[in-house]
Amino acid sequence: MALKTARRGRIPPFIVMDVMRAANEREAAGKDVLHLEVGQPSTPAPAGVLEAARRALVQDRLGYTDAFGVPELRDRIARFYAERHGVAVDPARVVATTGSSGAFVLAFLSAFDAGDRVALASPGYPCYRNILSALGVEPVLVPVGPETDFQPTPELLEELPGRLDGLIIASPSNPTGTMIPAAGLQALVSYCGYRDIRLVSDEIYHGITYREPACTALAFTDQAVVVNSFSKYFSMTGWRLGWMVIPEGLARSVECLAQNLFISPPTLSQLAAVAAFDCEEELEANVAKYARNRDLLLEELPRAGFDKLSSAEGAFYLYADVSRLTNDSQEFSRRMLEETGVAATSGVDFDPDRGHLFMRFSFARGTDDIAEAARRLCAWRR
Amino acid sequence: MALKTARRGRIPPFIVMDVMRAANEREAAGKDVLHLEVGQPSTPAPAGVLEAARRALVQDRLGYTDAFGVPELRDRIARFYAERHGVAVDPARVVATTGSSGAFVLAFLSAFDAGDRVALASPGYPCYRNILSALGVEPVLVPVGPETDFQPTPELLEELPGRLDGLIIASPSNPTGTMIPAAGLQALVSYCGYRDIRLVSDEIYHGITYREPACTALAFTDQAVVVNSFSKYFSMTGWRLGWMVIPEGLARSVECLAQNLFISPPTLSQLAAVAAFDCEEELEANVAKYARNRDLLLEELPRAGFDKLSSAEGAFYLYADVSRLTNDSQEFSRRMLEETGVAATSGVDFDPDRGHLFMRFSFARGTDDIAEAARRLCAWRR
Repeated sequence: MALKTARRGRIPPFIVMDVMRAANEREAAGKDVLHLEVGQPSTPAPAGVLEAARRALVQDRLGYTDAFGVPELRDRIARFYAERHGVAVDPARVVATTGSSGAFVLAFLSAFDAGDRVALASPGYPCYRNILSALGVEPVLVPVGPETDFQPTPELLEELPGRLDGLIIASPSNPTGTMIPAAGLQALVSYCGYRDIRLVSDEIYHGITYREPACTALAFTDQAVVVNSFSKYFSMTGWRLGWMVIPEGLARSVECLAQNLFISPPTLSQLAAVAAFDCEEELEANVAKYARNRDLLLEELPRAGFDKLSSAEGAFYLYADVSRLTNDSQEFSRRMLEETGVAATSGVDFDPDRGHLFMRFSFARGTDDIAEAARRLCAWRR
Repeated sequence: MALKTARRGRIPPFIVMDVMRAANEREAAGKDVLHLEVGQPSTPAPAGVLEAARRALVQDRLGYTDAFGVPELRDRIARFYAERHGVAVDPARVVATTGSSGAFVLAFLSAFDAGDRVALASPGYPCYRNILSALGVEPVLVPVGPETDFQPTPELLEELPGRLDGLIIASPSNPTGTMIPAAGLQALVSYCGYRDIRLVSDEIYHGITYREPACTALAFTDQAVVVNSFSKYFSMTGWRLGWMVIPEGLARSVECLAQNLFISPPTLSQLAAVAAFDCEEELEANVAKYARNRDLLLEELPRAGFDKLSSAEGAFYLYADVSRLTNDSQEFSRRMLEETGVAATSGVDFDPDRGHLFMRFSFARGTDDIAEAARRLCAWRR
């Protein structure tokens, strides 16, 4: 008899990574690729972070840290909430994590049991539902569209059959870039409080916004799990460092889980990340570049036939309804890569039901690449 | 109504980290501590790794990598098995992970479903059973003692009631330092093959051995999950980098889980770790130091009344039967820290049933510290 593999391990791939691999193979074969598929900045960490990392390499032994991270980092993150949001956060509630990925694993294991039901918007970041599934939690998809700016509302939640144990929200959202305004966030917090639903607020794209700054769930409640990361605004993807602000009631459980499942987040990344908060000039220049890229795509993509776009008030994504162009966005994405060298992601990653009619364009890379991609797509669709 | 916390999140702490915190607090209060509680080298990463890290900080953007890690690293690890063990390993089966901790999470989720039963030696590394519990897998403790050198045998497994889905072994073991000889390993592999039991072989202390080199399970089977790490022999704990060699049948599941739960291991650590395999001189000097520390403790601890010690042919731990001295090793450990400044870990971490009669002494730190600790313990117990 062959050895078994676990049923719960049979989760879908994170398809964007498969697209990245196809794009990388094309590049390795000597053909050029314009990377509008990648959800990460093309910039390295800011200079201040690199300098702090160089110092730490010399001065620190780089052993394990406390499971929740070094005190300097936790204090600095707490101060960031006071400075940026005017919200007082006790550093004891701040948990450094191995990327936001590590934060989600810890949050879901500490807040939800196997069999629990957690609502989340569809389209949404696919890892939410894939991690939930792997951990035996039932993802309850809330189909959202342009009517609610691709965000869940108390009314949409109220229409769901069955009891909910949790709700995951993301503002700005991946893949749509849409945001939940302060009043909407307050309404969702109230609804969760009233229904005893644990709110998990993914704030990983905070800082990358084009009209209003993003609002943190911490402004309205201390019972939510707030997740953030150094990967996006702070441009430190490969450093694998994120953080959570957790309710007091989850602290001991999260600590035990973190000790056992992670021991501690990468030490060099922790020591270097303290400097990230003082690199505002460089980081705001990145955001200004994303803003130029966004303007360019909002102007050019409609000319190429991609004329139904999400509002994208934050993050570096546009979500395009391509139902006029194809009813198989995966095949469409493969053909687009092959015929134009432009890599972008099928919506299937983000929405298992309607994603075949959508594409996600990322504009995190350099403006020249974005402009060239727009030119090629216009020529291709003409 | 208060929001629920998950039952499965209520796993025990990794007590050694609580002891570390008590020791650190004592140090912060200006008192000295001799750290025989810590399961990590006191040395930094070898010079070649630090140099490679400095280069990567300048030359690489440090973005996400493939979920399984950069090809250079996976190739180098595969070559290591050829060089060190004479075993051919396809780099496609090598998975870089976020520490061995990340490897266990991926291995357990891909190989075992909720409700499955996995055997493991007690005493043993507490995170095995705590991670299994958090993931809904039932840990089946195999009580082991000096009769079998604190290691499981087919006979002991055969005595267990009920069906087994998996077996975790560790040679050299934490907390005892004992090893499974080649013949014993082959017998366990055969037994697992015969009974359709998935073998997980933790080889994280390979390289740190004092008589025979350790034997890898890969020499006998390609159906085991073999876990290793850069933390111990390679002296890179805070870099959070480990690896697995996985059976082909688990590859797609592990890849999807890794993409969703981790995205990729820390990039700088990956790029730097390639150089670790060329730092043998420095690393072997570390092992020579551990050997001196071990000789010293094997000589001195019995004089302090710790006269029933595990054989410790590898790793940097001695497991002491202290039943003659106390029947509460946690209280004993607290008192020892308070009265002598020597931090060591109660066996309760490693064996919930009999650990109150055992202590673990780590000899990973400098020889001066170990000698001073021995002196103080002798004086204390006189």
